[in-house]
Amino acid sequence: MEFKDIGEFGFIRRIQRGCLIRPEGVRLPIGDDAAAFIVPDGQVALVTTDLLVEGVHFLRNGTSPEDLGHKALAVNLSDIAAMGGTAREAFVSIAVPGDCALAYVEGIYRGMISLAGEFGVNILGGDTTGSRSDLIINVAVVGAVHEREMLRRGGARPGDCLFVTGAVGDSRAGLHLLRNRLPADSDAFMELLSAHHRPRPHLAEGRFLGKSGAVRAAIDISDGLSSDLVHVARASGLGVRIDAGRLPISENLKTFCRRFGFDAVDYALSGGEDYVLACTVDPTKAAAVAQAFMARFHHPLYHIGKMTSDGRMTVVQGGEVRPFPPAGWRHFSETEEL
Amino acid sequence: MEFKDIGEFGFIRRIQRGCLIRPEGVRLPIGDDAAAFIVPDGQVALVTTDLLVEGVHFLRNGTSPEDLGHKALAVNLSDIAAMGGTAREAFVSIAVPGDCALAYVEGIYRGMISLAGEFGVNILGGDTTGSRSDLIINVAVVGAVHEREMLRRGGARPGDCLFVTGAVGDSRAGLHLLRNRLPADSDAFMELLSAHHRPRPHLAEGRFLGKSGAVRAAIDISDGLSSDLVHVARASGLGVRIDAGRLPISENLKTFCRRFGFDAVDYALSGGEDYVLACTVDPTKAAAVAQAFMARFHHPLYHIGKMTSDGRMTVVQGGEVRPFPPAGWRHFSETEEL
Repeated sequence: MEFKDIGEFGFIRRIQRGCLIRPEGVRLPIGDDAAAFIVPDGQVALVTTDLLVEGVHFLRNGTSPEDLGHKALAVNLSDIAAMGGTAREAFVSIAVPGDCALAYVEGIYRGMISLAGEFGVNILGGDTTGSRSDLIINVAVVGAVHEREMLRRGGARPGDCLFVTGAVGDSRAGLHLLRNRLPADSDAFMELLSAHHRPRPHLAEGRFLGKSGAVRAAIDISDGLSSDLVHVARASGLGVRIDAGRLPISENLKTFCRRFGFDAVDYALSGGEDYVLACTVDPTKAAAVAQAFMARFHHPLYHIGKMTSDGRMTVVQGGEVRPFPPAGWRHFSETEEL
Repeated sequence: MEFKDIGEFGFIRRIQRGCLIRPEGVRLPIGDDAAAFIVPDGQVALVTTDLLVEGVHFLRNGTSPEDLGHKALAVNLSDIAAMGGTAREAFVSIAVPGDCALAYVEGIYRGMISLAGEFGVNILGGDTTGSRSDLIINVAVVGAVHEREMLRRGGARPGDCLFVTGAVGDSRAGLHLLRNRLPADSDAFMELLSAHHRPRPHLAEGRFLGKSGAVRAAIDISDGLSSDLVHVARASGLGVRIDAGRLPISENLKTFCRRFGFDAVDYALSGGEDYVLACTVDPTKAAAVAQAFMARFHHPLYHIGKMTSDGRMTVVQGGEVRPFPPAGWRHFSETEEL
């Protein structure tokens, strides 16, 4: 059955049941002119939105619909995580080409609903329409945070310790396998593919960092560590110095780089779509925060460098200091992103 | 210059200055992982979103970018109006094909910012990316409303008076001119085109109705009066009876229908994209509400029929009662919507 056979309203009736995951605080779910819900007392609302376009961000025949739905929601949850917030309500707009099977669209929702359930997020509305050729998904997520716990990109100070909440580079390695149709013939490669297809938003980690009171700036790693750190540095009027030897590089990425002769540090610095968080921490509190993080999450908050007053983006590797270019995703300067 | 020449971040820097229209209550505008803002004390948040796809909802070469930007925002503001709410923050996702001129995209924002300024709405974020072929715009709007003043689709009761806040059918007439490349050779036809391109969201009217305490159900007319009234009737478990003689049909639409031999009542019932509000009102309060509306807006709240307990959708015309079909927009059952 194709999507157009049941139409917009038929489809909404099919999917709306599973979308209300946390009814408390919801005044109107899917089905009216707008959704209505409360923002918890004393908190500010956070809103982020991401648009995924077939052929630019994903290939329909190279991505399972569940993975696509997972990722479309996960990238937005990651933005809420980077603000130190709690994700609460999601809105899904989807434009479906005439040749797209109903089962594929339902699979997208299955992937989203599964992830939404994990993080207590409701799907409260959106828009469903046709498209001439490409499948388009826009997800907007509303979160909430106490203003004093909100994490901004700016606000870093010289001497702040620079941390990341997880390994970087795995997603880019997964994308390399996908793009070059290389077989995922080991657990390591399967996990790299999974890092690319099903990133885990670091919402609990973001809440922890926001509540710590010691984090001065934070961002999620979507465009690539080096690109995203440029945003933090610019917003704070500072430079960044990364210690290459401290970058968290997974065993899977090491295996991958050995096999294909790639430089793992390069993958870690410029790989995009990791969706871990980077943050700068008051150096007098950094050790305590890192220790509490380890106790809570059972892996380190990785200390990868520091913020500097010189305005330069540098990486120290083998005693040598070199500038790093913000080489990550560029939607318009690369003609083909995938 | 083409859009890809300045890239996503260059474009954001160009447009962000004009986007903060009402700084009060905004904690973080465009530029961080998410926008942050307050929802006024004691009010619930409203969110609505609409996705516009080139070739389905608009033709790039048949629409000025300012009109496209105006409409993309207006259709969302209209949904907030239909809830009785105040529109506050907008989020704009846009996917731009490589051949799209930067000037066109800037024109879209000009149209949005102009309308946003009229209604005190901020543009606080969004996403900007590439597209293989079609221009895609998704707008999400956050509003707020006191829960006791919120207008739902359900909640109508048998005997409720049915009103609309303005003329219906003009937008469809404008679309007919556009589709058939007919010259807009009179003020009447220019105004019909304008009704199609630059609908005015009835936000003040929606607030008035919400505060009246007499409105039991409301919806905005986007799919067409008959289609949208089916939503109200279904949500309330009722029927609708429309008095054709009372439909507000503009002089412009009458002129248009005389010229081309169309039935103005048919245009009024099944035309889409009028973006006026329809509401059902407690019959004991209807006269007072209509009188106050006239005093405030200097034109009638048009009394077009009533809600019935028989579950039927009927129109009375020339003493005859006939069922009306929900003939409005259908994104998937029509292969070509434009």
